[in-house]
Amino acid sequence: MEDFEFYNPTKIVFGKGTENRIGEILKKDKIKRVLFVYGQSSIKKTGVYDRVVESLRKNNIQFVEHGGVKPNPVLSHAKEGIKKAKNEKVQAILAVGGGSVIDEGKTIAVGAKTRKNVWLYFKRDEEIKGALPVYVILTLAATGSEMNGFAVITNEETSEKLSISSEYIFPKISILNPELTYTVSPQYQAYAAVDAIAHVIEYYFTGSYCPELQSRIIETLIRRIIDTTEIILKEPQDYNARAEFMWSATLALNGLTRLGIKDGEFPNHMIAHALGALYDLPHGACLSIVIPAWMKWYMEKNKSQFERFARQLFNKDNAVDGIEELKGWFKKIGAPVSLKEVQVAEEEIKKVVENAYGIACVWKMEKFYTKEVLTEILKNAKD
Amino acid sequence: MEDFEFYNPTKIVFGKGTENRIGEILKKDKIKRVLFVYGQSSIKKTGVYDRVVESLRKNNIQFVEHGGVKPNPVLSHAKEGIKKAKNEKVQAILAVGGGSVIDEGKTIAVGAKTRKNVWLYFKRDEEIKGALPVYVILTLAATGSEMNGFAVITNEETSEKLSISSEYIFPKISILNPELTYTVSPQYQAYAAVDAIAHVIEYYFTGSYCPELQSRIIETLIRRIIDTTEIILKEPQDYNARAEFMWSATLALNGLTRLGIKDGEFPNHMIAHALGALYDLPHGACLSIVIPAWMKWYMEKNKSQFERFARQLFNKDNAVDGIEELKGWFKKIGAPVSLKEVQVAEEEIKKVVENAYGIACVWKMEKFYTKEVLTEILKNAKD
Repeated sequence: MEDFEFYNPTKIVFGKGTENRIGEILKKDKIKRVLFVYGQSSIKKTGVYDRVVESLRKNNIQFVEHGGVKPNPVLSHAKEGIKKAKNEKVQAILAVGGGSVIDEGKTIAVGAKTRKNVWLYFKRDEEIKGALPVYVILTLAATGSEMNGFAVITNEETSEKLSISSEYIFPKISILNPELTYTVSPQYQAYAAVDAIAHVIEYYFTGSYCPELQSRIIETLIRRIIDTTEIILKEPQDYNARAEFMWSATLALNGLTRLGIKDGEFPNHMIAHALGALYDLPHGACLSIVIPAWMKWYMEKNKSQFERFARQLFNKDNAVDGIEELKGWFKKIGAPVSLKEVQVAEEEIKKVVENAYGIACVWKMEKFYTKEVLTEILKNAKD
Repeated sequence: MEDFEFYNPTKIVFGKGTENRIGEILKKDKIKRVLFVYGQSSIKKTGVYDRVVESLRKNNIQFVEHGGVKPNPVLSHAKEGIKKAKNEKVQAILAVGGGSVIDEGKTIAVGAKTRKNVWLYFKRDEEIKGALPVYVILTLAATGSEMNGFAVITNEETSEKLSISSEYIFPKISILNPELTYTVSPQYQAYAAVDAIAHVIEYYFTGSYCPELQSRIIETLIRRIIDTTEIILKEPQDYNARAEFMWSATLALNGLTRLGIKDGEFPNHMIAHALGALYDLPHGACLSIVIPAWMKWYMEKNKSQFERFARQLFNKDNAVDGIEELKGWFKKIGAPVSLKEVQVAEEEIKKVVENAYGIACVWKMEKFYTKEVLTEILKNAKD
């Protein structure tokens, strides 16, 4: 087992109607003024917006709105949020939405406490030294951002999609009400499932040593993500399925599943981020395209783990069948598994490779993921 | 899935040689003076004591010693520690040992911040409002106290073994070096395994609803606790087995496994505490006696979960076989499974029942666990 440090101070408030407690929660923490960050119109349609506002008003919490966060949140919009946060002297960020909203909220939280260009932290040229406290109401379970210290932003000027990681951006409190995900569409539920699975398989496959305990916990999470997604797609208002899915997605990237694994990396996310940055595709869709292609290329490098994956998850005898089963399941739930399906032509691969290689350099993975390797992986995904 | 709140701010530093970092860790937290709490002579024999002292000296951390903590830590000794902590104006508690040392350390941490009799918190007559920060170096993996807000103490005057629960007594940082457990005897490894298993099966069996995800994670933990214990008993210096066991025991009671389970209780611990308080028996030995007896009595109340336990853990078709397999495994590793084995005669049962009923009253479980019920369970354990 590899040495590790683990620290996760986010408090989770999980259950029915919990979003109505946000005002009282902020009041208890002596927060009087927040930047209320949200996405497109969905929280207004579902009534979440109104309930949050009511709870804030009832507890005399002032708020400044920062709506309009995009599914792939962009730097320019985050910078507007930073300006508002500074000008309006808010004490905290309240992010109400899915991973994109939370990630932009975290970016604003960092930017509001510094005079530096926030993008420098994403380029890893500067170290994060503080952030406003972040509070979350989750409306889409997928990214795990509600209980970790990561955030991903796209710089639309340079087409770079990069991440930050810091203890300062763990949400202070995250409110998880599975009922709020009843309205998540089948397509986005599929992307969410792919994303949550992606979070646990990266280290599982790339680690040079993976403790049996971690392999088993990861397999358990994948199994539950698959099974609850099947239920949700048939019965969108099954509370227990929504709840287990939501909590599984949180556990998938709150730091626990990677502990003790040696030398793990995040190559699928690296390539998926390149696709997301260039074509503004949903993150889960990028991952469902990349994962089977990457698995096919990587398989021989860790054959026994791919064999156990096939066996434990799909009751299959060999590694290739395991990959095919996963790919087949992605297809079945409506997630794309080729570049062709999302109208990215073969001629585009060179551009994707260049972009992914740029991320590889920032993440210090460029020695293994050369342009030749990235090309080979992406060619596996062409149709 | 039942509503829940989860919060666990303990930072874990896990790996080889990590105990040597204690001085530097305390210094970083601006701690200059600690109460150094430890047990009997074992940390002096193994050299841990010397390494800790060296690390403290190197970082100019002053320390006041409070050794001699007993395996079932007693209130009078904790009160001596509280006096020392107050008189010597320490800023923090450093507990170096297993669950007993940590629990006494936590008790001192609470007592040092109040003028009230610390026992009132165990009787649940007073609410904990603060505590000194607690730092831990773990030398015996079993109780999970290194990553939770619980502590158990025996009041030897009244023969009461009771617990406290508070956010204030989560250790701030816990250092877990699996190498420090190489010297744990086969007998204590057996008790440790029983204790860790006990922590996950209480809610698993008593919950009126247990999410599939939680059942599976719990089964995974039990399987790894059993398998790694088998390796450890054959090869005490197998690092990976010691490491997986250590981390499994931490996960077993850091709050995660009980989330979303409805109506869970801790009846086995309740009865085991009575045995521990009256006869000063090792906690794990009390549990290995109580668990099969309790299971036999409780089985019909949650038959399907007992059947799945038999199937998932031991590949058996019926509930009774599952209980027998677990009991057989306790026997195999050298843990007692009857009162007779620990020289508690049948005539003593009445006394044990009285004591356990006292705990049931404090824990508000006396309506279900009447004296008749407790007698019936304990009679299952007589020989």
